[in-house]
This record gives sequence, C-alpha cells and structure tokens, in this order.
Amino acid sequence: MTDTIDWTGLEKFARRLAEAAGAAILPHFRAPIHVDDKPGMRDFDPVTEADRAGEAAMRALIAANYPDHGIIGEEYGTERPDAEFVWVLDPIDGTRGFVAGLPTWTVLVALHYRGQPVIGLIAQPYIGELFAGRLIPGTPPAAHWAKGALGVRACPGLAQATLTSTGTSWFSADQLSRFQALQDAVRLPRFGYDAYGYAMLAMGFIDVVAECGLKAYDIAALIPVVEGAGGRFTDWQGGRDFTRGEVLATGDPRVHDAALTLLAKA
Amino acid sequence: MTDTIDWTGLEKFARRLAEAAGAAILPHFRAPIHVDDKPGMRDFDPVTEADRAGEAAMRALIAANYPDHGIIGEEYGTERPDAEFVWVLDPIDGTRGFVAGLPTWTVLVALHYRGQPVIGLIAQPYIGELFAGRLIPGTPPAAHWAKGALGVRACPGLAQATLTSTGTSWFSADQLSRFQALQDAVRLPRFGYDAYGYAMLAMGFIDVVAECGLKAYDIAALIPVVEGAGGRFTDWQGGRDFTRGEVLATGDPRVHDAALTLLAKA
Repeated sequence: MTDTIDWTGLEKFARRLAEAAGAAILPHFRAPIHVDDKPGMRDFDPVTEADRAGEAAMRALIAANYPDHGIIGEEYGTERPDAEFVWVLDPIDGTRGFVAGLPTWTVLVALHYRGQPVIGLIAQPYIGELFAGRLIPGTPPAAHWAKGALGVRACPGLAQATLTSTGTSWFSADQLSRFQALQDAVRLPRFGYDAYGYAMLAMGFIDVVAECGLKAYDIAALIPVVEGAGGRFTDWQGGRDFTRGEVLATGDPRVHDAALTLLAKA
Repeated sequence: MTDTIDWTGLEKFARRLAEAAGAAILPHFRAPIHVDDKPGMRDFDPVTEADRAGEAAMRALIAANYPDHGIIGEEYGTERPDAEFVWVLDPIDGTRGFVAGLPTWTVLVALHYRGQPVIGLIAQPYIGELFAGRLIPGTPPAAHWAKGALGVRACPGLAQATLTSTGTSWFSADQLSRFQALQDAVRLPRFGYDAYGYAMLAMGFIDVVAECGLKAYDIAALIPVVEGAGGRFTDWQGGRDFTRGEVLATGDPRVHDAALTLLAKA
C-alpha cells in the first residue's frame, strides 16, 4: 500500500497546515498582554487565544481534506488516534518565549503513519522560517530549509559540544542530577530554545539537546527533522519510550553515546 | 550649541552604521563552524570574523563621515574617548547565540554626547528588526520600532513580573545570591536573551532585566531604548555606575524599587 500513498501531497499539506496556523497566530504575536493574572501562578503557562486559533485553523483544514485522519493536538485533544494517518499538532511550542515577544516560538506539525512519525515541520512564522524533515518508508531520510538541505555536524565528544535545553525548573531531582552531569561535561550550555534548538541541531550548530517534560505533541515533529538531518533522537535510556517526556537528540553518535552514559539510569 | 546639532542626521547615520554592520555580518551567520577548538575552553566566547567585519564596517563609515568623533568598540578598542561625540559599538551582542544559529543576536550602536548616551539602536539584521531610542537634550525621550512607538508596560510588583537575564554562570557568589533572591520573587524567569531582552522590555513584554558582566559597549545602546520607552535603567545600587557591569532595567518603577531591595548591597 505504501507506494500508492501520495507522500508529496501529504508533505505539501503539512506545509499548508503550518502556514494556516502561522496566519492565525501572528495577529496575536506582540499584541499587548496584561500581567494582572492570578497571584500565585508561579509556573506560568499561558494558553493564549493564539494557541487555540492556530490549532483550530489546522483542524479545520484536516477535517476538510482528510476527514478520516486522526489528530492529536495540544489544545483540542485527540480524535481517531488509531487511524493509519494521525496529525500531531502543537500550534505554539515555546509559549513562554511567545508571551515575552521572542521570535523563537514555533509551530510544530507532524504526521504519523501507522504509529511512526514520517513528516515533521518546525515553522517560525514571524521570521518566515520552515525546517522540514521526512522519514518516509522506502525513501532516504532527509531534511531541508529554505536554503537547502539540513545536516548535523560532526562533534568528537561532549567536551567540544554545545548543549541546549528549554529549562530545568520542572525536572525531578533525579532528572536534574543526571542532566547536571551532562551540562558539566559540555563546552557550552544554553537555555530557553524550545523546539528551535532541534532545528539548529539539524542545521549543524548545536550538538546535543536534552530535555524533560515534553509531551507527544512536542516531540513528534522533531524526530523527522533531527533524523532526516542525520541525527539521533531517543529517550534518556537510548530507546523510543517518550512517555516520561525525556528526550535526547544529538548530531554525532559519539556525543549520543557519551550523553547516554550520563543520562541513563544505572 | 545643542540646538545647532543635526540630531536627525546623527540618528540616520546611526541607522546606517547598524545596516552596514548587518551587511558585513550576515554572510557569516549560519556559515558552518568547526567545533575542534582547543579542549578546555569551557567559557566559550567566539570572537568571530563576523564581529570584526561588522565593527570594521562601522568604523570606516565613522572615519569617513565624522572623523573627529570618538569610538569605543568591542573589537578594535578606543579612539578619542574624550571627544564631544563618541560612538559605542558592539557588532554582535550575543555571540553564543550567534554561533548556535539563533536569530536573537543584535548589533548595538550608541552615540554618547558629552559622556551621556543620547542615541541607542538594537538591530537584528537577520530578521530585519530595529529598536531605536533617543535621549536627546531638549526633546522628550522616545523609542520606536518598525510598527510604531515602543513603550514599557505597567506591572504592579515582582510577583507578576517576567524576568530575563542572559545567564548567571559568570556571576560572583555574592551577585548570584542577590540575583537568586530576585529570580525567586518573580513569576517567570527566562534566560539567554542578551540585548534582545531589553528591546522586549521596551516593547512591554518583559518587566525586568537583571544582568552582570556587561561592558560599556554592551550597555550604552540599551539606555536610550529602555528610557526612551519609559523604563528605568540603573546599576544594582540604583545609580549609574556601570563599572561593575551590573545592570537593572525595568518597565515599572514599582518593580524597579522592589528589585533594588533584593539586589542592592546592604
């Protein structure tokens, strides 16, 4: 059946989804935000109108074009998760950056085929950037952006590596201690990147991304971009069980193996 | 003498400087970078060709157009620092983000008049953004970007505030302990913004920026943008002595006073 699937059409449609989400979200970006939220809301996770508008735009397109496809979305839940094709949508990854006016939030769009991510897009509508990966059965993995192919860079080991992570304040004590060992081993740690860090890893400017607390809709789009660019993408045990929200992505297998030694539970 | 100075011409020239630096820097942005630097270089501060090319482009324009003006630059040092007009240049603020491919590094251009910052620009050439402030004698402070005036937002106190800082790994133990008190008091701390955070404070999306380790060429451009947008900009004692590299910028005076209570030395 695989060879009768119009993968090119599905990739174009994935791009339409990201564009529609961007068009719905951009009017909200840098619109004034009041700061009189409830006192005591320390772990601030703004679910803005923009998030909902972006996901609604994508769901409407899917319903109109592929009504039998499933959907897993951040804002509006799950429909037909056992369908052969399931779209996994995160309208705004990096909401904290979004509400701070930073242009590094992204729209994440992924397509699962029989449970595996086959298409992944990381889009930044304000800048107009798109990072796209494909892991389509029967064709070589690949990833690209506007200026050509994406490809990870070589890095001999952690001592030469640039590490990024969104942040650590929500890590468990155990996760934090394992992450800290990794952070102490790399040359340059940087924080606050959200999904944008995976795009820069795919482009060859970051060597390792290690995170906790990711959800299915955060992860799905990243895998085709990272693996399409030649990188590795696993959980902190080196497997593919992302139910704990632990993600390790690297450009060079030597860095992956060294990072796993520090991150994996004994 | 003040009223015979062509401030409009100087503001246009400041913009030309930022544009020239951007044009010189952009070919280096996201060009492949090898990671085989000396082992042991833990505090990685890449002084790239881009930095030098950007500053050289600005210095050439100043020499050609205002040969009697002074210059303080990150890469090529100081000339005529006692001149009535002194340009303060940081071709790439946020070099760590730059080498990681992140589009939030900026070009900083400031003009000092008789020792005071009167014009400040924060430019992001890859996105094509410019945040400009003016503190010109005899005219009201003002700041703007492409979509209009910049203005800080109201924020009643630290419990409602979003804080940004580039990072804390170079803080002294004493600075870190004071900063930590501030970080613990705010609603949302975020890291890794460099000068871009001050632009977002001026736009009304961040309430407080607190940093250490800034140099004169990091600071000069920020003051007209923040104060032109109605914010406050001091050292950690509430004064204007930036020789320790300590900076506190806020949008709301209530947040400034509360932050000083935590940051100032007893």
